[in-house]
Order: sequence, then C-alpha cells, then structure tokens
Amino acid sequence: MAGNVVTAAVFAIGSELLEGSIVDTNSAWIGSHLVKHGINVEDTRLIPDNMDRMAELFVEAAEKYDLIITTGGLGPTFDDLTAEVVSRVSGRDYTLNEEQLEHIRKRLLKFGIQLKENHYHQAKLPDGCKTFFNRMGTAFGFSVPCGNSRIISMPGIPFEMKPMFEEQVLPWLHELFPLRERFIRDLRIAGKPESEVDDVIRELGIPEGIECIINVGKGDILVKVRGFDEAAVHRFAEAVRKPFENNFIGYGDETFPVRLVRMLKEKGY
Amino acid sequence: MAGNVVTAAVFAIGSELLEGSIVDTNSAWIGSHLVKHGINVEDTRLIPDNMDRMAELFVEAAEKYDLIITTGGLGPTFDDLTAEVVSRVSGRDYTLNEEQLEHIRKRLLKFGIQLKENHYHQAKLPDGCKTFFNRMGTAFGFSVPCGNSRIISMPGIPFEMKPMFEEQVLPWLHELFPLRERFIRDLRIAGKPESEVDDVIRELGIPEGIECIINVGKGDILVKVRGFDEAAVHRFAEAVRKPFENNFIGYGDETFPVRLVRMLKEKGY
Repeated sequence: MAGNVVTAAVFAIGSELLEGSIVDTNSAWIGSHLVKHGINVEDTRLIPDNMDRMAELFVEAAEKYDLIITTGGLGPTFDDLTAEVVSRVSGRDYTLNEEQLEHIRKRLLKFGIQLKENHYHQAKLPDGCKTFFNRMGTAFGFSVPCGNSRIISMPGIPFEMKPMFEEQVLPWLHELFPLRERFIRDLRIAGKPESEVDDVIRELGIPEGIECIINVGKGDILVKVRGFDEAAVHRFAEAVRKPFENNFIGYGDETFPVRLVRMLKEKGY
Repeated sequence: MAGNVVTAAVFAIGSELLEGSIVDTNSAWIGSHLVKHGINVEDTRLIPDNMDRMAELFVEAAEKYDLIITTGGLGPTFDDLTAEVVSRVSGRDYTLNEEQLEHIRKRLLKFGIQLKENHYHQAKLPDGCKTFFNRMGTAFGFSVPCGNSRIISMPGIPFEMKPMFEEQVLPWLHELFPLRERFIRDLRIAGKPESEVDDVIRELGIPEGIECIINVGKGDILVKVRGFDEAAVHRFAEAVRKPFENNFIGYGDETFPVRLVRMLKEKGY
C-alpha cells in the first residue's frame, strides 16, 4: 500500500478493445468506484487475448499493486483465457468448479442448449478461488491471492459486471482493507479560459493531502478536488470557486444545460 | 517491427481517465484506424498526469514498439505534462515553439484573452519536433524519434484529435512505413450460443495469417476475421458463416434492428 492507501491496477481484457471495435467503459466505471472508496487506481490497461502477454502483465502488476481488477475473457470460447492465466500466475491448478458448472448447466437449460466441451472449459477456475455469483449471466467472478497482491476477475459484459461489483466485490473489499471514503468536489466553470483557472490554482497552491486536476470539456472546465479530509476538500474547492462566482455553473454533473433546465423550472417555466 | 508488421502503443493521458470521470474513447478510435492500416496495437493504457510515471512508461514502450501514439496532456494547465515528458525521454530540449505560440496568440485574440505565463508553458515543445497543425483548437500535435521508436502526441479533445489524425498523422505514417491495408470481415450471428460458434471455428481451424476473435454483445455474436490477404479473409469468413445461414444477421455494423429496417424498406414499408 502506497502511504496506507490501497493501490489497484484495472485490466480490461480482450483484443477487440485494443483494436477499437468496442470502447472499454468498464474501467472508467470501476475506476470511479475505487477512487470514491479510497483506492488509488495506478494503472489501467487494455490487454489482448494472448496467454503469455497476459501472464507477463499480471505478474508485473502483482508486484506493484495491492489489487488487480479485471473484466472480460471469462466466456466459453477459445479466446477466453482469463481464468487459465490467473491460475497460472497465482500458482494454482486450473480445475473444474462444480458450482460454476451447475450454474452454466441451469442457464443453458433455460435456452434449450446442451452442455458441451467449451462449457467445461468455462467452468474451470483457479483451484480454491473465492467466487462471485453472476445473477445476470453465466460466468462467475472469482478472486485469488497472487504474491502480496489479490486478483479479482469479473465478466466483461457491463450489465453482468456492475451488479457483481456493487453487491459482492465492493462489500468484500471493505472487509479486506480498512478503506476510507474519499471526498470529491467537482466544480464546473464556463466562459473562462483554462489558463485563468490554472492561475488561481497555482496562486492558491494545492494543500498537502488534497489532489486537484483540471479537465476541459465541451466549453466547460471541470476542476476536480478530492481528498480524505472532507472539510479540507470543501475549503479548497470553495477557494477555487470564489474568483469565478459569475462563471460557476455547478457541482459535479451539473452541466450548463442541466442548470438551465433547473433554473427555468424554479422560475415556473 | 514484429514480423514486418509495425507495432504501436496507444497512451491516453490524464488522471481523470483512470479515475473514470471521463471514458477514454480516443484509444478505441485510434486503435481501429491503426489496425485497418496494418499497424498492430500491442499496448493501450491510461496514464496519470505524473511526470516520473509518464517518463517510465514512455521509455518502456519505446524499447518495445515502433510507435507510441498519445492523446491528452497538451493544455496550458499545471497538470499538462506530455510535451515536457516527451522532451525528456527523447533527449531533446523543451523549448518555446514560435509557430505554436503564434497560433495560441491568434486563437486567444478571437476570444479577447491575453497571452499569459501558462500559454508560454503550452507553447513549449520538444526541440526540433515535427508539428501537426490544430485547426480545431489550440494545442499542436507533434512527433519526435525516441530510440528506435517514434512518439506522436495529439490533443485529447476528440474533435481536435480526429481531424489531425486523419488529415496529417495517418498520411505521414504511410510515408514513414510501408503499411499494408488489413482486411476485416465482421460476421454478426444471433440466436445461437457462443459455444456453437466457437465449435465451428475450432473445427475449421484458424488458417496461418488469419486472426479471429469472438465478441459477445447484446444478444449478438460478432466474429471478427482479419488479415492482409483479402481472399483468404473472405474465404475463412464465409466458412464460418455457412453453418449459421439462418442466424446470420449481417456484416460489420449491421445489427438486427438495422437489418430489420433495411428489409422493411426493401419491402416498401
């Protein structure tokens, strides 16, 4: 842990992601949850379906981070390699998980599909892993220790991954680590150049324990202020906001159109 | 180059990406173009705004890949570090680029903004770099050799990056490397389990020189077949398609709703 903060790598697995036939939205979604729960995301990568390459990157990350969270590569097809590679790098056998097999059998039955060789492949998991039930699909999530790190693998399909993460993985992370909530205050400023916002922040100086970044979007500037001390976060955010009183749009997701609609509603339109 | 194929790393720069306040769509967009133009994307990562970390990852990638393509971190604010880190890792001075400064001055003038210290920061680029004009925004793209590799840095705002890539970077890549077009045939199959499609592909065997991956989306299965030999790509794609005649939805982006609309139109509805 870096200065008592739990560190994580987030890996989205699938050659199709590097080749851009699908945009990886899982990593951003997971990243935003980890940061809010006090975990630092230090490395986010898209990883091709290649056993040796995957193994190399897992081993490298296990040396550096407390957690490796992966999505994808848990299906029944030949290019789904995550469970096998996690078994290999964690030094565990890659064995048939009866509970996972039974779950697959039941789901297939619903669609009138027979259990086949490739489903036995999908039912193989790292020996003795902790599993996460998939109530939205076939593939279980699972976790094993790997050196001083811990690998957590989830399916890549977002509507299967998200409830699994929220209902099972996140509560479990809170059991594993003494996580502290990170307070985040986003300020949205419009009609001012980025450089003026930068000036104000440089002038103020970012206090110890506070992190701050500036994003430029469609006409807006988003200043993200965060830290573990709620009062300090609010204090710094207010200090940044003050010089832009007339250009301050809102907090967080409150974009100009959203604010406009709210203002019009308040005025009875 | 790996077996005469140009290899690339794609880096999206910005702490906000790892923390999921923005989804990185640039890398997928760039990746899909590179693959089509015969360049292999071997490493896609999101990189935080941290000078030492960035330098470490650039140096590592420069040893492995022919190309490093980056987006983001070219603005005027304190957390925009790309030009400085590229200067550092390529062993070049980080100097004021008069042409970039003049472009910034002209754009600011339009909005009635005065040139300030942080704009001089933004106008600093690796000494003697090749620049790419930004007709949609302020920050130039640029490129320098770095060891046996070549770094190409572009702005992170998609509507600035995309025309720069298409109009300037891509033609230049064709000058630099003897690129060959890669042929891609995507088959969309619905109403069949993933495992059956997998069976057919395993049975056929993927021929030398052909790459094939299976993606599972919303009810559809997408089989991606690609390679440099157009006839061979089509031959294999047809062999995969044939057993699924009644479940074949279309090629590429032709999803079931798209196909349905087309069929209804053909029938005069």
